[in-house]
Amino acid sequence: MEPSFDGMWAELAGVGRDAGTGGYRRFAWSTAELTCREWFAGQAAARGMGLERDRNGNLWAWLGDGLPGTAVVTGSHLDSVPDGGAFEGPLGIVSGFAALDLMLARGWEPRRPFAIAAFSEEEGARFGVPCAGSRLATGELDPDRARGLRDQDGMTLAEAMRAQGADPDTLGSDPERLGRISAYVELHVEQGRHLGGTPFAVAVGDRIWPHGRWRLTFDGAADHAGTTGLTERKDPMLAFASTVLHVRQAAAALGARATVGKVVVAPNGTNAIPSRVSAWLDARAADEAAVRALVADVLDHARNRAVQDGVEVAFAEESFSPDVVFAPGLAIRLAGLLGGVPVLPTGAGHDAGIFAAAGVPSAMLFVRNPTGVSHSPAEHAETADCHAGVEALAAVLTNLDRSP
Amino acid sequence: MEPSFDGMWAELAGVGRDAGTGGYRRFAWSTAELTCREWFAGQAAARGMGLERDRNGNLWAWLGDGLPGTAVVTGSHLDSVPDGGAFEGPLGIVSGFAALDLMLARGWEPRRPFAIAAFSEEEGARFGVPCAGSRLATGELDPDRARGLRDQDGMTLAEAMRAQGADPDTLGSDPERLGRISAYVELHVEQGRHLGGTPFAVAVGDRIWPHGRWRLTFDGAADHAGTTGLTERKDPMLAFASTVLHVRQAAAALGARATVGKVVVAPNGTNAIPSRVSAWLDARAADEAAVRALVADVLDHARNRAVQDGVEVAFAEESFSPDVVFAPGLAIRLAGLLGGVPVLPTGAGHDAGIFAAAGVPSAMLFVRNPTGVSHSPAEHAETADCHAGVEALAAVLTNLDRSP
Repeated sequence: MEPSFDGMWAELAGVGRDAGTGGYRRFAWSTAELTCREWFAGQAAARGMGLERDRNGNLWAWLGDGLPGTAVVTGSHLDSVPDGGAFEGPLGIVSGFAALDLMLARGWEPRRPFAIAAFSEEEGARFGVPCAGSRLATGELDPDRARGLRDQDGMTLAEAMRAQGADPDTLGSDPERLGRISAYVELHVEQGRHLGGTPFAVAVGDRIWPHGRWRLTFDGAADHAGTTGLTERKDPMLAFASTVLHVRQAAAALGARATVGKVVVAPNGTNAIPSRVSAWLDARAADEAAVRALVADVLDHARNRAVQDGVEVAFAEESFSPDVVFAPGLAIRLAGLLGGVPVLPTGAGHDAGIFAAAGVPSAMLFVRNPTGVSHSPAEHAETADCHAGVEALAAVLTNLDRSP
Repeated sequence: MEPSFDGMWAELAGVGRDAGTGGYRRFAWSTAELTCREWFAGQAAARGMGLERDRNGNLWAWLGDGLPGTAVVTGSHLDSVPDGGAFEGPLGIVSGFAALDLMLARGWEPRRPFAIAAFSEEEGARFGVPCAGSRLATGELDPDRARGLRDQDGMTLAEAMRAQGADPDTLGSDPERLGRISAYVELHVEQGRHLGGTPFAVAVGDRIWPHGRWRLTFDGAADHAGTTGLTERKDPMLAFASTVLHVRQAAAALGARATVGKVVVAPNGTNAIPSRVSAWLDARAADEAAVRALVADVLDHARNRAVQDGVEVAFAEESFSPDVVFAPGLAIRLAGLLGGVPVLPTGAGHDAGIFAAAGVPSAMLFVRNPTGVSHSPAEHAETADCHAGVEALAAVLTNLDRSP
């Protein structure tokens, strides 16, 4: 197993990596992500698996797809956040192929269809909606809205797909495909600090916190920084800054997690008062009421401060994922199968959460991350823990293949 | 005169203009700015003027440069801030050529060398140092530092110059050239609201407020927005936001003008705590002590807040221009020559300020801006006022040509 995992890992290590930051920039439908997709196709071909690109641009490598019954599927995604780590996404896919190699080496033969999948735009880093590929498949994301989503340069998802030879007209819900899945298992690097310092290299996920992202747009009036008196200004940077500080206060008060991680300023000139500051709020909590209360409080604050500064504020929900509880029996069964590993919730969204909410029996495996750091070049998992993850995934997939 | 001005104005109107915002993006050594430079060369050629690119990339169109004596020079710049207006910069150059046409049509013949100049990177919008072309000429900007200045994509000024066929190795002070100038007159759209509602279409500038720009870099640690608890974070967005609000308070307390107009966030992902927030402070006041007090106060606040958030803050002065008083006799003489127009100070920096500080007799003419808005697509001057500016510039240049 080690040669299989390590070799694939090395093949992907350089793709889309920024030499300066050491982080990955594999945005959906970018050249870097497409190189990863070509790598995926090569891995499927090397194992005699049938490659399929579904109507939403998700990739599926199939084994035994002529077999009767519903399918066991594992997978993750190949796209990254800006300057993301090496593990988030690719670890699940490389581990899927390595687990398959291990199962085959141990004499496993599929009793039902088996697939490894790579889902599109899981991070939402380019077009703003996370898990876009799985949300389209479940019907949660409207295909017309999806086609019109724009990246920071103004290019739509439809244009980006066409530029890479894909057809955006096929986007849309795919209930037959999802109905054919008996279990979807997503292996992921841990994003948190639960396993560090424990004897466990692997855990099972049981739920995903409700979470979403909201865009706040503060509109003022561009003007010369040197010649415009303070009282003559409509400077949207002030209401933005005040709102950032309020986000932290509100999150602390509500026991939630809230972050302003992305900001775009126009015209973004040193000697110009901005005309517009666009900010994205990421908010999550253990219960949906806390998330909703936080967002309402932040918006209220932003509107009041905007009045004070003579600027306008607009507000849009870009995505929202309600509380997702994975099939409870499944999580407990898998934790037992793996010798009693921990069962953990997570604040991070995943395609498995989208599928679970749509009724596809889904589960997650987390591989220990010593610092818990993720969405950063410093994201890390020890190689031995990755290997343990492959072992665990192989055990889970073999078990699910044999389940009635 | 009108056909001459209006025709040139129309030729430049579309160059580097963004269709979406209506603003101009003519950054130093970009294709758009080079198109403007080619236009400049064409205007010089059409008038039989000798074209010269000096060692710092500034353009000079010469007439009568074989004549004895020191030169009368007018000029401005062709580069813009991001989404800048049409007038800042090009108005001075188009008015220079139109004033020359008017003078020639009235039978003027130069008694001393005459030039129209276009200075490089006046805004500092690309490489961070405003008036880079004139600061290099006076020796205020070290050529090694200039060559190493980087734009937002990491390209150095030296690389950008080479990419356009210019030689960065020649950068450096040019005292002989400056010593040959008897007067430099820069016509500029008004940036402020002094002339609106008065009968005056034109004013004379007498001083430039001390001003500068400072970069504040807040370094934290990138991490996952959903899985990192509030107390585990090193989020640089918070210290940045707190500093933005303090900048406004400090400016109000000191009677200064201070602005945070440019912000760059890394990795700038919605679901990632930022690793770094870089912010630029523009500060100006009627006296240097107020500017220095403001900057010290802001830095003090940023450092204290950074400690609270567990982040680091670094600080750099990117440029500073002390109080500049234009040759007082010259300003008063020109205001009289123009029939007693107002004499105004400005908070905006200009190449004329750099030259004045270096001992070159310099003056400025301002053309009325009804709203005062600048560094914005909404920047405006009425055509009749632009024509009045050309008349005033022709009168001033003719007078200076005949001065002993």
